[in-house]
Amino acid sequence: MHAFVTGAAGFIASNLVDRLLARGDSVTGYDNFATGNARFLEAAREKPGFRLVEGDLLDAERLAAAIAGADIVFHMAANADVRHGLEHPRRDLEQNTLATFNLLEAMRQAGVETLCFASTGAIYGEAATIPTPEDAPFPVQTSLYGASKLACEGLITAYSEGYGLRSLIFRFVGVLGERYSHGHVFDFVGSLLADPTRLHILGDGTQRKSYLHVGDCVAAMLTALERTQGRLGIYNLGTDEYCRVNDSVAWITARLGCTPRLSYSGGSQGWIGDNPFVWLDTRRMRALGWEPQLGIREAVERTVDWLVDNRWIFKERGHHRHG
Amino acid sequence: MHAFVTGAAGFIASNLVDRLLARGDSVTGYDNFATGNARFLEAAREKPGFRLVEGDLLDAERLAAAIAGADIVFHMAANADVRHGLEHPRRDLEQNTLATFNLLEAMRQAGVETLCFASTGAIYGEAATIPTPEDAPFPVQTSLYGASKLACEGLITAYSEGYGLRSLIFRFVGVLGERYSHGHVFDFVGSLLADPTRLHILGDGTQRKSYLHVGDCVAAMLTALERTQGRLGIYNLGTDEYCRVNDSVAWITARLGCTPRLSYSGGSQGWIGDNPFVWLDTRRMRALGWEPQLGIREAVERTVDWLVDNRWIFKERGHHRHG
Repeated sequence: MHAFVTGAAGFIASNLVDRLLARGDSVTGYDNFATGNARFLEAAREKPGFRLVEGDLLDAERLAAAIAGADIVFHMAANADVRHGLEHPRRDLEQNTLATFNLLEAMRQAGVETLCFASTGAIYGEAATIPTPEDAPFPVQTSLYGASKLACEGLITAYSEGYGLRSLIFRFVGVLGERYSHGHVFDFVGSLLADPTRLHILGDGTQRKSYLHVGDCVAAMLTALERTQGRLGIYNLGTDEYCRVNDSVAWITARLGCTPRLSYSGGSQGWIGDNPFVWLDTRRMRALGWEPQLGIREAVERTVDWLVDNRWIFKERGHHRHG
Repeated sequence: MHAFVTGAAGFIASNLVDRLLARGDSVTGYDNFATGNARFLEAAREKPGFRLVEGDLLDAERLAAAIAGADIVFHMAANADVRHGLEHPRRDLEQNTLATFNLLEAMRQAGVETLCFASTGAIYGEAATIPTPEDAPFPVQTSLYGASKLACEGLITAYSEGYGLRSLIFRFVGVLGERYSHGHVFDFVGSLLADPTRLHILGDGTQRKSYLHVGDCVAAMLTALERTQGRLGIYNLGTDEYCRVNDSVAWITARLGCTPRLSYSGGSQGWIGDNPFVWLDTRRMRALGWEPQLGIREAVERTVDWLVDNRWIFKERGHHRHG
């Protein structure tokens, strides 16, 4: 199988690339390196089955040339910064919605028939049903990020109906693990490595969140790809548990061996659009025979360990974030 | 109140404009005349409270200048051609999703705080729950038109959450009445006026559809605007009935006094993405004290009468459609 992976130099995507190469697939990675990291592809670039194309999904010509010959597309590229969406409302539209449209058109023109899409539990907004199943009541969007991913899902399912595309859509909870480089564990560990005596927490610390280890996430995608019958599969991906922000703070500080003074911004949300309770119903995915190997605490601890061993990432990310 | 109406020269929008002017509001109409019809605004242009700006929603500069000073926006402009979406997949994206984003940005920059949005029951795809309520299970899109309107709703609700926009979203069934110039009644009447001896019907004629008269549609929007509490209101608009395509054929031919030989393309759908059963639950809107004054048959008959009296529309539309 020849897989085309968008955003290949990203956190989850680069883990997927390594897994695909390890099982013998050939992979074309496509990345504009806006937030991707070339170091995440160092192992992949040693493999003969890997090819990297530096390009932007908004560059239709470059994309068309790169995608030719692929059997399947894993669309992992995204602006994943849900928290700061309101500061630059055009970014989610361009990097998520328009990029996905361009990709769908490139696939249609190249005759690539299968798409795996990295969506998000954020599209449920503040769900009324928890744990939230895939057919939860019609959601109201609470973030530009969620709105843009919903728009992507709409386009993908309409392409499935209209053009016969085979589509697998995965709604992720927060993903943690090796190469994790964005989000609250990243922020907390970065802050504590710089100053272990104090930690500032957005919200009141009682927000309930769900996480999944990247290895389990990648395994779920490949399992669903193999076992889904029919043209369309939509799957929540997560563990069967959640934790409070204060829980993850306790696990992180224990792992780092520090006892910071905690301060809180207060309120039930960390920021506008922050969902105070994320917990997805994953029975549909489990019915395919998949189950996560790691719980949330283990995922958090592995992430802390990786960040401690890879402190260079804090400088890289800081550079990119303000670039 | 100074209302800014996008797509003002369109079917529903021009009826809305006349209603707003009649009750004493001032109105700025904005239209690119891609499918809008200047004749629909002839009455409005006689009124001192009306101003017309010819412009495109994708022209941010022109839009910003035109929207300044408005108190409320009625966003009625759209590519409403659901049937031929697959022939030009970029059109729904540009004319619906991107146009709506541009409008939201223009509103934010101009400080316009209230939006009424013409959405569609098409966003429910092939709904599992019928009559379909606003909080039906998370839908799967079956048309690029529905996908684009879903994307618009996502953007609008995210803007409400993030920037405090007050939003009213109306999910229309098929709207009929004076100035109706697109859809199956239009096609049937046009065909029968040209040749009353035969009529070709897409699908097998058993498709079940819902319709609402434009007067009831406009009245519902203004009622909801007045009576909705809170920042966000989402309302289905329709009657409490549906009809089969064969019913509307019978009503149309009886009204025209002709007995054509009927032929069918066959199948449960008229085209890919055609929803064979549209029936919306309108209890939420009725709870505000609104109810439709006309049933589906009366709406069909009034539409036939208007088309017969305004045969010029068939030439105009034919010209635009292929333009």
